[in-house]
Order: sequence, then structure tokens, then C-alpha cells
Amino acid sequence: MSASARRLSLNLFIYPGGHHEAAWRYAASDVDHLLDIDFYQKLARRAEQAKLDGIFFADGPVLADNIRFAARFRLEPITWLAAIATATSRIGLIATASTTYGEPYNLARLFASLDHISKGRAGWNIVTTSAGLAAQNFGLSEHPSHADRYGRAQEFVDVVTKLWDSWEDDAILLDKKTGIYADDTKIHPIDHIGRHFRVKGPLNTPRTPQGRPVYVQAGASDDGRSFAARYAEAIFTAHQTLANAREFYADIKRQAKALGRHPDHIKILPGISPFIGSTEAEAQKLHDDFNELVQPEYSLHQLKRMLGIDLAGHDLDAPFPSHLINFDGAQAVASRFKVVLDIVDREKPTLRQLLHRLAGARGHWVTVGTPEQIADRMETWFQSGAADGFNVMPPYLPGGFDTFAEQVVPILQKRGLFRLDYEGTTLRDHYGLPRPESVYGQQARATA
Amino acid sequence: MSASARRLSLNLFIYPGGHHEAAWRYAASDVDHLLDIDFYQKLARRAEQAKLDGIFFADGPVLADNIRFAARFRLEPITWLAAIATATSRIGLIATASTTYGEPYNLARLFASLDHISKGRAGWNIVTTSAGLAAQNFGLSEHPSHADRYGRAQEFVDVVTKLWDSWEDDAILLDKKTGIYADDTKIHPIDHIGRHFRVKGPLNTPRTPQGRPVYVQAGASDDGRSFAARYAEAIFTAHQTLANAREFYADIKRQAKALGRHPDHIKILPGISPFIGSTEAEAQKLHDDFNELVQPEYSLHQLKRMLGIDLAGHDLDAPFPSHLINFDGAQAVASRFKVVLDIVDREKPTLRQLLHRLAGARGHWVTVGTPEQIADRMETWFQSGAADGFNVMPPYLPGGFDTFAEQVVPILQKRGLFRLDYEGTTLRDHYGLPRPESVYGQQARATA
Ligand SMILES: Cc1cc2nc3c(=O)[nH]c(=O)nc-3n(C[C@H](O)[C@H](O)[C@H](O)COP(=O)(O)O)c2cc1C
Ligand SMILES: Cc1cc2nc3c(=O)[nH]c(=O)nc-3n(C[C@H](O)[C@H](O)[C@H](O)COP(=O)(O)O)c2cc1C
Repeated sequence: MSASARRLSLNLFIYPGGHHEAAWRYAASDVDHLLDIDFYQKLARRAEQAKLDGIFFADGPVLADNIRFAARFRLEPITWLAAIATATSRIGLIATASTTYGEPYNLARLFASLDHISKGRAGWNIVTTSAGLAAQNFGLSEHPSHADRYGRAQEFVDVVTKLWDSWEDDAILLDKKTGIYADDTKIHPIDHIGRHFRVKGPLNTPRTPQGRPVYVQAGASDDGRSFAARYAEAIFTAHQTLANAREFYADIKRQAKALGRHPDHIKILPGISPFIGSTEAEAQKLHDDFNELVQPEYSLHQLKRMLGIDLAGHDLDAPFPSHLINFDGAQAVASRFKVVLDIVDREKPTLRQLLHRLAGARGHWVTVGTPEQIADRMETWFQSGAADGFNVMPPYLPGGFDTFAEQVVPILQKRGLFRLDYEGTTLRDHYGLPRPESVYGQQARATA
Repeated sequence: MSASARRLSLNLFIYPGGHHEAAWRYAASDVDHLLDIDFYQKLARRAEQAKLDGIFFADGPVLADNIRFAARFRLEPITWLAAIATATSRIGLIATASTTYGEPYNLARLFASLDHISKGRAGWNIVTTSAGLAAQNFGLSEHPSHADRYGRAQEFVDVVTKLWDSWEDDAILLDKKTGIYADDTKIHPIDHIGRHFRVKGPLNTPRTPQGRPVYVQAGASDDGRSFAARYAEAIFTAHQTLANAREFYADIKRQAKALGRHPDHIKILPGISPFIGSTEAEAQKLHDDFNELVQPEYSLHQLKRMLGIDLAGHDLDAPFPSHLINFDGAQAVASRFKVVLDIVDREKPTLRQLLHRLAGARGHWVTVGTPEQIADRMETWFQSGAADGFNVMPPYLPGGFDTFAEQVVPILQKRGLFRLDYEGTTLRDHYGLPRPESVYGQQARATA
């Protein structure tokens, strides 16, 4: 494998219990330890043994309303990843955090800590929070509009970027003799005054190993795409078909280029949820076994989040009632709405069939087959302009990931598509991203 | 040592570089690793070997303005302690966090994580933030008044308490067969509507091993004392003399009793910064060596924070100009102001002498002597109604703590004043505090 060959980026997307919505009911799921840090440390170590780029936790500051039927609580990603950091040494640690329900100074500190603690492995999945009910936990009568959320998100990212840059790399002198600990001309107030925030700075922590965490984004609306093209260094995305994934890929790379960015510095990573069997029939059986465990009451709840309408009471075995759905940006999640419409158009499913289609991974690509078949499909997406890698979403844990790591990863490695070992130590190294210079350092050099 | 004997509680208070303000310049200080998690993990493991109750980090969301002369950056305590949690198994982990500059829902999540990750060892030092400059990092033109900060603090603590109680202990059923993951009648919205916060809840994480983190407080004003008497399970405090410590101790225990609380359920822990030598002369020499390294420019900055006035330019070797100082609550820190006044009254120092007196531990009790002498003094405070234990503040790290652990702790153990081994696994166990029941569980049982 030559050093310059283009290679896949692979993350393990960890959902407590696994990604299939009924995963916790599956016999081989280990769900007795979902609050035990040891469980996640072991999982991260296995992902590191398989040389994955990173692990990733989603997040939202509100409890899902269907906890009765599934393990839908949340682990606060930054603290859990800080505790996982010290049990690993190479793998990237990507935490989701909201720009809608937090303060930039506080969030900048949390991620700076994660980057220091992990010695340069932090990534931030920047979200505006898809779960509107979060508003009620923060004194708001309603979730801010999509446009307002993205407006605040931009300013939020600008502020935290300045905070992470506020210490130049060489600010600490540590001169015991003269008594000068730091060169305070290299520590800059940011003096930010904007529409949403006034933040003086500087940050109260020295610059981190990566300079800044890797910026990850997962928006799919037009606002989301242009935000991603401008800021993201990796993009998580959900597609059901190669064609849709290619359209998204081309659009983002084009927008990034138009903004003067190098397209290789934005990794596009669709989700993939693999059901793996040693034969096709065995894989299909595994997939069927999971769908046996699905509870329509729960699935309809999930569908409601995607579409904004409640189909409870409808005949599960009649055709999906397409005439009832209508995109309402306030209630529905734009990206998932499109995914659902697309399935309905192509497959004309019954309501139950649609629920089963979505149960695997909430609209992400579910693929069923042998290790060779899964590797083939990944290679096709990778080689035909649809993906720079994948967010791997095992249907259940830890077995669903073990199978992928033991059976699919070696095939990808043999084909020269995936690394045999890490070449660097930071998440930026794994993704092939440059380490940014502090904007203040740049300015200082420019005027020198 | 009988199981029921009253014993000391001891925490290691970790300040990057150590507590003496010139610690970082001392030859034996390890200050090359202040951003390295391994350094803190090792320190915590040593404290655990010495059977201490906990380790503690202070905090404030702003950079000190005298970073030029000392290692005054901050590590965000919750993330650092999450990373330390997994390298230890018994020792308590106490993080400072502000009620003035954060949202209750976010903070409740961070501490719930720390308590889960550490399997029941989290403590929260509840502060209203003493550094007024923090306001500028959060869009405020000025630090809210003392009364407003304490008003918000009370409501903040009420909200997070309800959030931590919002899941009853037995809410998770995990019944794979019936498909019921959680009994949602045991997960309660909190529906809080108050002057500062509107929070619907419930928290998005199951109840933690300790139910709630241990509540620690460090206020010294009248508001601070009554807040502590009501909420605190441990109190950090700064006293220079046995008499002052006894007055404080008696006042808090009296107030707590008046509120119907058991006085043993509030541990009062003054700071102690020990300079230890094998002879008195050697200990004195160590103390003098540190004061040689003091930089008056830095010390005057520190004094300004305590008193609210700037004495730069005054003759260091003239008597301290007491006539200039005047308590101004807006600028000065109440508790430290009293400490300084007290030293000035008793000792009539020059300005330089005062700076040296305060350099050791920012107004905390600095004590210089042999291990036996230090143990004697601790015993006196413990046995005469001045302390239930101490916050140990080593002048430098790690050596300043090693000496204490190796030379003073064994004496305290031999005298039956300190545990030979842990008897429980949580911080509540170490402090002898009960595990609180969820208020919602209580209500449910009362109406059943
Ligand atoms: C892999 C992936 C992970 C996501 N994780 C989160 C998350 O953790 N929290 C969240 O609020 N939204 C999450 N989202 C949703 C996006 O942030 C975004 O809200 C959604 O894709 C809709 O796009 P839009 O906001 O541009 O309309 C995720 C999306 C994807 C594809
Ligand atoms: C041991 C100790 C540690 C403290 N740590 C902090 C801290 O980390 N952050 C902070 O803002 N204040 C801290 N304080 C200050 C107190 O929270 C409080 O602001 C101060 O004692 C003044 O009391 P008052 O607020 O009641 O006037 C600490 C005090 C003590 C005694």
C-alpha cells in the first residue's frame, strides 16, 4: 500500500445498545453494561486494534419520549470520551455538541480539555440540535427556527475558533530563572462582539495539540450543506442509494472548492449499517431476526420525528399513505424526510415495510450480505465519488462491530483500501488534515 | 481503630504546579507536565494509596491576568476528573463548577456522567465564581451582585437536584421479552418554573450511583455560610488561626442543626499547606526557599484580588498601609479580606512580609514543621471543634504531596485519626454521608 494512495476513513458510531432500534432486545446484545465505562473502553480498544480513524457519539440535551421501548438515554459525549481517551492512544474521539443550547466559552473549554487529555484526538460534531423538545430544558418556549439556529451556529463556531486560537503555540516559556511563565503578548483577547455573543477571551487553557478539534458536521438542508462546505473537515451523512450519495458528495466538494478550500480536506462519510453473514441467506436471516423484534409503537414514534406526522392507528399492512405527508420544516428533520420520500417512491412499501426499512439505522444505509459483498459495496461507493469513508453503525454491540472488524476490515486492508497501521497520532493525522495555525500567530507574522 | 471512631477526612487540593505562588520556579517542581493527564493520574493514584477521601480541582471560567508570572491557566475539572476516574477506583473526585456561568441542564449532565464513569465518586464544589472578569466571557457587562449570584445559585441547585432525582433508582426494567426497556412512570418531568430558570426535564441519563454528587461549598460571607448550612455536605474554608476556625465551625454546625440537618453530615475542611522538614530548621529553610522565589509584581496582583486595591508602587519594606484598605464587596473577596485583616492586626507586617505570608496558599493556613508537629496541629484542630478534616494544599507537586503522604499520614493512622483502608467505594461512603433517595420516589411511596 503506497503512502499516497487514497484510503478509506472509518469511524465507529456508538449508540448505546447498537443502531437497530430493537437491538437491545436481541439476545447477543450486551445491554447490561450501558452505563459502565469499561464497556465503552473495551469497544474503543477493539476499534483501535482494527485501526479505525475514530469513534463517534451523537447527542441531544433532552430525553427522547420513547424511552419506554428502547435504551434512548444519552451519555454526555465529551466526559465519556475523556474517560475513553486514557484507555486508548491512537483512535480519534468525536463528540457531538450543540451550538443552540450552550455557551461558546464553556464548550471551548470542554473540547480543549478533550484534545489535551487525548493528546490530539478530539473531533467536534457541530449540530444545531435536531430534537426541538430540548428548548424546554433551557427556558425557551420553542426551538429557534432552522435559520436562526444556523445563524447562531456560524457565530458560535467563529467564537470558539478564536478562543482555541487565542494562545499561540509557543506562548508558554516556563523560564524558572527569570520568573516568566508565559509570554503574554502571545495570548490574545478575542474581543468578539456579535449578534448572539460578546466574548472577551482569551481562553483559560493553552493551545491544544491539534490546535483545534477536527470540525465535523452532519447537516443536510441547504443551510446545512453550505455550513458544512465552509467549516467541516468531515461530514456525516445518511444516504440510501449510490446516486443520492454521489449527488451530495459532488455538491459539497464543489461548494468547498468555490470557497477556496482543498476538497481533500473535507472527508464525506455516509453511514453504513452492515448485517453480515457467512452466506447471503445467513445475513438475511440476521436482518429478519432483528425486524421480528421491532415494536411498531416505537417505530411510529421514530417516523413521526422524521416526517412530522403521527401515523399511529394506520393499517400497518396497507400501502404507506404518501398523500398524508408534506414537508413541514418546523416538525420534521429535512434530511431524513428526503430519505423517507425516496424509499417510498422507489419501493412503494406498506407502512410496516417502511418501518422495517428504517428500523436498522434511522434512515442510514442498511446493507445485508457476506463480508466480501459488504466490502465490494463500500469499495464501489468509495471509488465512484460517493464517499471518502464511512461511519460504521453496527446493528448491535459489541458483536455487530466485532464481525465487521474481524471479517470486513481485513478484506479492505488486503485491497489496499484501508490502513494496516496508524501513521500518525492525532485525528488530523488519520484524516490527512493539516494542523491549523492560530489566526493570531498568522497576523503577528504578517505584520512582523 | 474502632469502626465508629470519628476520623479525619482528607482531600488533596490540586493546583497545577502546586499552591505556593512561586511553586513553578522551585527546582523540584514538575511543571513540564502540567498539561499531561498522566501527571494527574499518577498524583491521584498516590493520593489513593494514601487512602485520602478525595482530590479536588478549583475552577473559574476566565484566564487570570497574571499568567505572565505563574502557571495560572485552568484545566476544566469535570473532563480532567473523568479521565482520572478510570485510573483510580476509590478516591473521590471533586470538581468546582459555577452556578453563575452555565445552564443547569448542561451541568447536571456533566456531573451525572462523572458519577457514572467513576462509579459513585463525584463531588461538586458549588461556587458563584469569585473572578468577576468571567462576566466578559459570557456577554455580561458586569459580574452579577453577590446577592444575585447567591439567589441564582439556590435556584440552580434546586433545579439540578430535581434533575438528578428525575429518574427513580429502579426505572430501568430491561425486559427483553415484553419489550419494555424502562418504566416511564418512574421517570419524572421536573416542570421547574422559577425566577432564573424554566426547565422541564427529565434528565436524559439514568440516576447515578450516588444518587447525586456530594455537594461541596466554599462560601464565607453571611450568604455563603447560610447557603452552605442548607446545601453543603462538605465545606472548604480558609482560616489562619484555631480561634477563627472554631468560630466558623460552631456557626455552621449550629445553622445546620437549626435547619433540621444532622451536623455530622456536613464535613468542615479548612485548607492546610504544610512545609515539612525532618527538623524545624529544615522545614523553615524550605519555606524560606520558596519565599525567595516570590515575585512582588505577581503577589501584589493577588493581593489586589483579595482586597480590591492596588498597592503597586508602595514601599515593600514599610509597614503595611492599613489605613488604605476598606472593604468593597464589589471588588474584594469577602473571606480573604477578613483573613488579610486578621494577619495585619495580629502581626503588624511590612508589605513584603504580608506578601510572603499569603504567597504560600492565598490566605489558607500555612504551617511549617516536622511531620510530628504537623500531625499534632491537625489533631488539635480536629479535636477542638475547628475541623472535621482538611483540604491538603501541597506547596509544590508532586514532592510536596509525597512528603505529606509518606511522613504525616502514617502518624495520623497510628494515632487512630485516619483510616488504614477504605471501607466503602463511593465518596459518600468515605465522608460517611447517606445516599439520598429521589424526591420523586419519596413522593410516590408517600402517596402509595
Ligand atoms: C450521522 C449523523 C449523526 C447526527 N448526529 C446528530 C446528533 O448527534 N445530534 C443532533 O442534534 N443531530 C444530529 N444529526 C442531525 C444533523 O445535525 C442535522 O440536524 C440533520 O441532518 C438535518 O439537517 P439540517 O439541520 O441541515 O436540516 C446527525 C446526522 C447524521 C447524518
Ligand atoms: C478551598 C476553597 C476553594 C475555593 N475554590 C473556588 C473556586 O474554585 N472557584 C471560585 O470561584 N471560588 C472558589 N472559592 C471561593 C468561594 O467560592 C467564595 O467565593 C469565597 O470563599 C468568598 O465567599 P463568598 O462568595 O461567600 O463571599 C474557594 C474557596 C475556598 C475556601
